Amino acid sequence: MPSRFELANAIRALSMDAVQKAKSGHPGAPMGMADIAEVLWNDNLKHNPEDPKWPDRDRFVLSNGHGSMLLYSLLHLSGYDLSLEQLRNFRQLHSPTAGHPEYGYAPGIETTTGPLGQGLANAVGMAMAEKTLGAQFNRPGHSIVDHHTWCFVGDGCLMEGISHEVASFAGTQQLGKLITFYDDNGISIDGEVDGWFTDDTAKRFEAYGWHVVPNVDGHKPDEIQAAIELAKQNSDKPSLIICKTIIGFGAPNKQGKEEAHGAPLGDDEVAAARKQLDWPHAPFHIPEPIYSAWDARDAGKNRQQAWEERFSRYAEAFPSEAREFKRRIKGQLPTELSSEALVQQAQEKGENIASRKASLAALNTLGPQMPELLGGSADLAPSNLTFWNGAKAITPDDASGNYLHYGVREFGMGAIMNGIALHGGFVTYGATFLIFMEYMRNAVRMASLMGQQAIYVFTHDSIGLGEDGPTHQPIEQLTSLRTTPNLCTWRPCDAAETAASWDAALKRHSGPSALVLSRQNLPHQTRSTTQLADIQRGGYVLKDSDGTPELILIATGSEVALAMDAAAELDSAGHAVRVVSMPSTYRFNGQDTEYRERVLPSHVTKRIAIEAGHADYWYKYVGLGGRVIGMTTYGESAPAGDLFKHFGFTVDNVVKQASELLSQH
Amino acid sequence: MPSRFELANAIRALSMDAVQKAKSGHPGAPMGMADIAEVLWNDNLKHNPEDPKWPDRDRFVLSNGHGSMLLYSLLHLSGYDLSLEQLRNFRQLHSPTAGHPEYGYAPGIETTTGPLGQGLANAVGMAMAEKTLGAQFNRPGHSIVDHHTWCFVGDGCLMEGISHEVASFAGTQQLGKLITFYDDNGISIDGEVDGWFTDDTAKRFEAYGWHVVPNVDGHKPDEIQAAIELAKQNSDKPSLIICKTIIGFGAPNKQGKEEAHGAPLGDDEVAAARKQLDWPHAPFHIPEPIYSAWDARDAGKNRQQAWEERFSRYAEAFPSEAREFKRRIKGQLPTELSSEALVQQAQEKGENIASRKASLAALNTLGPQMPELLGGSADLAPSNLTFWNGAKAITPDDASGNYLHYGVREFGMGAIMNGIALHGGFVTYGATFLIFMEYMRNAVRMASLMGQQAIYVFTHDSIGLGEDGPTHQPIEQLTSLRTTPNLCTWRPCDAAETAASWDAALKRHSGPSALVLSRQNLPHQTRSTTQLADIQRGGYVLKDSDGTPELILIATGSEVALAMDAAAELDSAGHAVRVVSMPSTYRFNGQDTEYRERVLPSHVTKRIAIEAGHADYWYKYVGLGGRVIGMTTYGESAPAGDLFKHFGFTVDNVVKQASELLSQH
Repeated sequence: MPSRFELANAIRALSMDAVQKAKSGHPGAPMGMADIAEVLWNDNLKHNPEDPKWPDRDRFVLSNGHGSMLLYSLLHLSGYDLSLEQLRNFRQLHSPTAGHPEYGYAPGIETTTGPLGQGLANAVGMAMAEKTLGAQFNRPGHSIVDHHTWCFVGDGCLMEGISHEVASFAGTQQLGKLITFYDDNGISIDGEVDGWFTDDTAKRFEAYGWHVVPNVDGHKPDEIQAAIELAKQNSDKPSLIICKTIIGFGAPNKQGKEEAHGAPLGDDEVAAARKQLDWPHAPFHIPEPIYSAWDARDAGKNRQQAWEERFSRYAEAFPSEAREFKRRIKGQLPTELSSEALVQQAQEKGENIASRKASLAALNTLGPQMPELLGGSADLAPSNLTFWNGAKAITPDDASGNYLHYGVREFGMGAIMNGIALHGGFVTYGATFLIFMEYMRNAVRMASLMGQQAIYVFTHDSIGLGEDGPTHQPIEQLTSLRTTPNLCTWRPCDAAETAASWDAALKRHSGPSALVLSRQNLPHQTRSTTQLADIQRGGYVLKDSDGTPELILIATGSEVALAMDAAAELDSAGHAVRVVSMPSTYRFNGQDTEYRERVLPSHVTKRIAIEAGHADYWYKYVGLGGRVIGMTTYGESAPAGDLFKHFGFTVDNVVKQASELLSQH
Repeated sequence: MPSRFELANAIRALSMDAVQKAKSGHPGAPMGMADIAEVLWNDNLKHNPEDPKWPDRDRFVLSNGHGSMLLYSLLHLSGYDLSLEQLRNFRQLHSPTAGHPEYGYAPGIETTTGPLGQGLANAVGMAMAEKTLGAQFNRPGHSIVDHHTWCFVGDGCLMEGISHEVASFAGTQQLGKLITFYDDNGISIDGEVDGWFTDDTAKRFEAYGWHVVPNVDGHKPDEIQAAIELAKQNSDKPSLIICKTIIGFGAPNKQGKEEAHGAPLGDDEVAAARKQLDWPHAPFHIPEPIYSAWDARDAGKNRQQAWEERFSRYAEAFPSEAREFKRRIKGQLPTELSSEALVQQAQEKGENIASRKASLAALNTLGPQMPELLGGSADLAPSNLTFWNGAKAITPDDASGNYLHYGVREFGMGAIMNGIALHGGFVTYGATFLIFMEYMRNAVRMASLMGQQAIYVFTHDSIGLGEDGPTHQPIEQLTSLRTTPNLCTWRPCDAAETAASWDAALKRHSGPSALVLSRQNLPHQTRSTTQLADIQRGGYVLKDSDGTPELILIATGSEVALAMDAAAELDSAGHAVRVVSMPSTYRFNGQDTEYRERVLPSHVTKRIAIEAGHADYWYKYVGLGGRVIGMTTYGESAPAGDLFKHFGFTVDNVVKQASELLSQH
């Protein structure tokens, strides 16, 4: 039977060898955290390598994602479908063993990590999801949702601001099944952290209401196991286990130094480490007894089997709950969902309301049909209008609700939403002002990169928010969203388009959707049945000219009504003007050439795009010969009406620009 | 002599009246913090209303910027050039009394606040600047830099992640002259904060190494003053004074509730508050005795006078230091600065090096000439290459250096840089990977909005960074930077363009500059003297065709060499191809029409833009008839060469796309 040290050294060897072979990567963290990982994975983690998607598995998150070889080693050794050949291809094109763990690339990767701090936030989201799903589905004597979330973090994660937001949130929500290991190795890229990171981290986390196990020797399995026991016992507080470790443990000349962090050790040091660790085996060779000791497949099968039996008993006692649980875990929408009908209703009602208010109406209708909705706002519920009639706040004592008061923590919210989505069982939405999307920006990107469904309700979408002024008025933010790959952005012009955007967002499982909504009222637009259906195409002719248009006005959101008014005036002056409403360029770009050509015919080069956002994005649609009535500066503090006038969003200005363009040859 | 309570009520009355008149705004914070502000401004703040730019004044930052009427009231009452009429115009177009305090709009506004948490970060930057400027200039017996930085924060600021980053940084740097008041009113927009914010804030800040004065009654002037004395005594730790306050204090039916936070109280409640506060005066009427008691002009003049005398003695003893101090405070560059010559030298050297390395070379040459340079990196010094030969780390015990190890705190870094810039005396640069610009995104925007000089060194600029993979590879980030008003972005293609971008950034005082640099080597480009000078125009013809070009290739950064190679091949095939290098679209857009037309003639519509960033931005330059070879998806983890090939950044692909375009009629 191999010793624990030998088992840990298998991780160390694979990690340093793979980094060496790739000529790039991070050996320090895997070598430093190998002992902790060995204890966790071999004696504590509830998982089944042969069914990495088993719903009640423990979740494991490597927040210090640069240590990806730690995770790949664990997956390979414990029996996941990740071969030695794939480890040898570390960091090569199309290999599942990417530089950082990429969700979906290899089985067992629970989330993409690398951008520091966000893994911890994902873990908080997973633990929150577990607690809420459990509160919604477990019944006395029937625990079908009952697992831990484990997270590794480094100094970098804990320096990042997001760690504050989510640790504070986790403490408030008393996420007792979240257990985090802090790799306290005293080293970051600039060197010894004393020069820039002197927090008393134990005290800091106690201040958040966490249970802290300090001063654990991260290279002593017994101490690690004892700390885990303590953490498990403490079920009403998240735990932080602070492990003193040596970065690059085993590399005699580089361990404990920054040199071990982010570059291959070099052939000589790798050889020296083999000697130091008493690991005589060739690169990528793991002796059979060590494979055997690591193999978690039988144990995993048994664990899952036990759960399946538990679930069967549950299904017998609570058949409809069991069906519902399965539906939600699969991410299927309720069959009776009436989101499409809602679009029709909104069109018929014809209300002149703010799109944020139309969004609330959508939630009020669809919310009762979707118990999987898990909403929230970063302390702007009364402004974002996200706390719908059936919303029930989740509290430490009752997690069965469907709404999270995230507090003023935008970035935390975004990354927690990712964790909830990754956990499964929920469709999450979260809200803030569009401008503060910037605070959570990289979490939005991560949802897009991972292809996770998340719905962002971004209200107060332009200078139209008025008096709060330039710090609160988005300009370039719409462009930022639209150029984010795999993010579907909507900026609806009235209640019907808002309902359509909710419909689309709920049905989009392959990535996030951003609903960009107005603070101010927007006039209702008349539509034919076809036009109503075409909203889903992202861009459509809202008003056409008789015959070929001389000019096309393209607008979104609050500027659609302006375009319609200007078109009416131009029409009266004898011009043939088409108005295209373009609530989602993402959707429009995805239409076939024929449709796009039908809406924006190539030969009509006189085009004006109108949007109270940054102008530059729109040249893609108006070309060198067109014009954009948009923003190129910051806004100002004033009533909305004054601002639209000041910045040229008036019928007069549109007509003037149009007339100039029409008079050109 | 009016009572302290009456003096504070003048703030309350002005605030509630101005919000009422504007029909929008935030009365709660000004009314809740009026007593604290009164004690601070009347008995402690070292300022001179008649010279708001006096270098050694105390800095005051209202991090909870929505309480702007608090600041406007203080400025008006104490004698700054801000009239009653201007208070009456609160939140109206072009009024200096904008919805949130906007830097430059009214005298005495030290920074723009509103986006929560960043004001605290600015204050940390100001305190850091004070400490370092003092360490560099003060001499035994001659303290010419010696002031406090005061900051007000609310619950929102302390929930935000950035508060963690900068409080941790301030604790490590022992910024003892930073004194922060926490408006602990228990209310945020979603209601009572207990539901989402249960931190033990005193303990948390102690964990950062702060001196905390807990449990101060924020409505008792004596307690407030006693806390200030304690804070001042504690000179090696920043202080947090935790004041229990009642939001909207004085409004009998709304105080202590969320309703007081962000909306006018209503006429009835304003009337009731007048009664409750025993403030019988008409709206916007301040009785003369109260004005008199608030008037800080004489005291301010005396304080400044004392400093001027101190400075005169200093100037006598240390004439060259005094001259240098004045130069730096004025923000003048050293007359001997050789940044232009450096461009010439880089051109002559002709090295094939990474632009991050060319940036380090620029720092090594210019650094010794610029003692005002205050650099740093968010824990990526060895990768960003920002720790130049003469860099000296600033430590708690020796603040005289010129380099800050910011730790893994990008957002904190960005907002601290803003504070340093606002304080004056420094030219600051800060670095991270381009992708992690997203973590600091809103601070970059705030620098742009405030027109502050800050230089961002964003390295690892594209898929060219290789193996770290999609989480680390920027795609849409360049577009985000380019569409940010008043931000000048550079993506240089070789060492000469890199030197030119440093030259430009150092000379640009009206806003920030972003230098977007490669990890990998870039080939040197040959240039004539004119071409070399034209780099400053942001876009210029790097290689022209004989006669009118049939096709224009536009490229930036690492793709310029690719464009040149493709052009050479197309030339051989008999085509007339022009190559435009476009390191800065910001600069190019600022050129006159004649120049832009000369570089990109309207009649040449066959254009291809090539950039390993998001494609959409470039349609502005290539139009509907052109093409963009860019990114529309995320990257992958692989060696850089493999990635450029995989994503079509090859001579073959450019030639193919060009040939297709050239064959169209």
